[in-house]
Amino acid sequence: MTNNHTRLHDQLQFIVEIDKLKHVLRQTVLMNKSRRENDAEHSWHLAMMAIVLSEYAAQEVDLVRVLKMVLIHDLVEIDAGDTFCYDEQGAETQADRERQAADRIFGLLPSDQTGELRSLWEEFEAKRTSDACFAAALDRIQPVLHNYYTQGGTWKKAGVTVDKVRKRIAPIAQGAPILAQFVDELIQDAVEKGYLRTETPAESLHLT
Amino acid sequence: MTNNHTRLHDQLQFIVEIDKLKHVLRQTVLMNKSRRENDAEHSWHLAMMAIVLSEYAAQEVDLVRVLKMVLIHDLVEIDAGDTFCYDEQGAETQADRERQAADRIFGLLPSDQTGELRSLWEEFEAKRTSDACFAAALDRIQPVLHNYYTQGGTWKKAGVTVDKVRKRIAPIAQGAPILAQFVDELIQDAVEKGYLRTETPAESLHLT
Repeated sequence: MTNNHTRLHDQLQFIVEIDKLKHVLRQTVLMNKSRRENDAEHSWHLAMMAIVLSEYAAQEVDLVRVLKMVLIHDLVEIDAGDTFCYDEQGAETQADRERQAADRIFGLLPSDQTGELRSLWEEFEAKRTSDACFAAALDRIQPVLHNYYTQGGTWKKAGVTVDKVRKRIAPIAQGAPILAQFVDELIQDAVEKGYLRTETPAESLHLT
Repeated sequence: MTNNHTRLHDQLQFIVEIDKLKHVLRQTVLMNKSRRENDAEHSWHLAMMAIVLSEYAAQEVDLVRVLKMVLIHDLVEIDAGDTFCYDEQGAETQADRERQAADRIFGLLPSDQTGELRSLWEEFEAKRTSDACFAAALDRIQPVLHNYYTQGGTWKKAGVTVDKVRKRIAPIAQGAPILAQFVDELIQDAVEKGYLRTETPAESLHLT
């Protein structure tokens, strides 16, 4: 094979490998409650949100960089699996597992593309640039929409309380303050409608 | 509600509505053969291909426009359904059904965004600009990869012959000639491996 053939071969092996993202299930359920969402369709949804909502980014963003970030941000979960955001035990090993996955998966590509996508993934994880802050905000908003429109969804199933959700969505304010305000109102409404609890059963017991 | 609130409200209703794309099933099966692919994860896969393979576009492309096109290109199927590409009867009414769907779905957005996305969708459908030709090429390559890596997949199930597949993938040459050459080799290999037939059973009978 010539170098050009090797390059295209590697790129296509990556394209074939990442089909596996369609099997990585998240905790979130689809809005019609029929089944759990997978990482590939979640990533597509974030990309659509980036296209439609970029005017609300806290600072000007480079849309193509934001799109790349949200499209690749979960690829590491092909190896590392989805760690539920309220799973404190899983979170301890998550960073290591995901770094190893990034080595393998981005490493399938020709080295210039390995470098570009790996670096965008690290930028997304670090949440320090305006592009990454906006991308991360979208990643926190989307499950709120799903949980709200499924009358509590994962919040109810996992018995999550409003204070934990508020902590989880804190990064939205940095990436998209107007959207953070909207999400706050949605969460308040979710509490009023009984989709989301204000206290754990133990706390509730303690208070009575 | 203020105008700004109405705008955000409309954008979020669109974001919620398009969750339905995750339920539109294509004929293509996933590479591990576990189930049929849906339009949302297919669109994500095309976006990843656009990121990795844009160097092979016939002419220079604007990546953000290509990404937007592949991410939105199947939204009309929320209303119009997926028309199997070898279904000649369905193809007759497809254009009308999809135009009506475009009116409704893109029409959920504020008018400036309706205009932008509707126009990108029409550009993708017309396949006349370099961005649209490249995006359309990716949309034809992806099912070939799926059918090849599932040892015939939809080709076998629907009894499709190689001449029909060659006609179907013809637009690849215009959008990405180097990738068209690769796909030709893959199809030749698929025929040799028995994943794809060279003739229909009737022709076969006629020849004997």
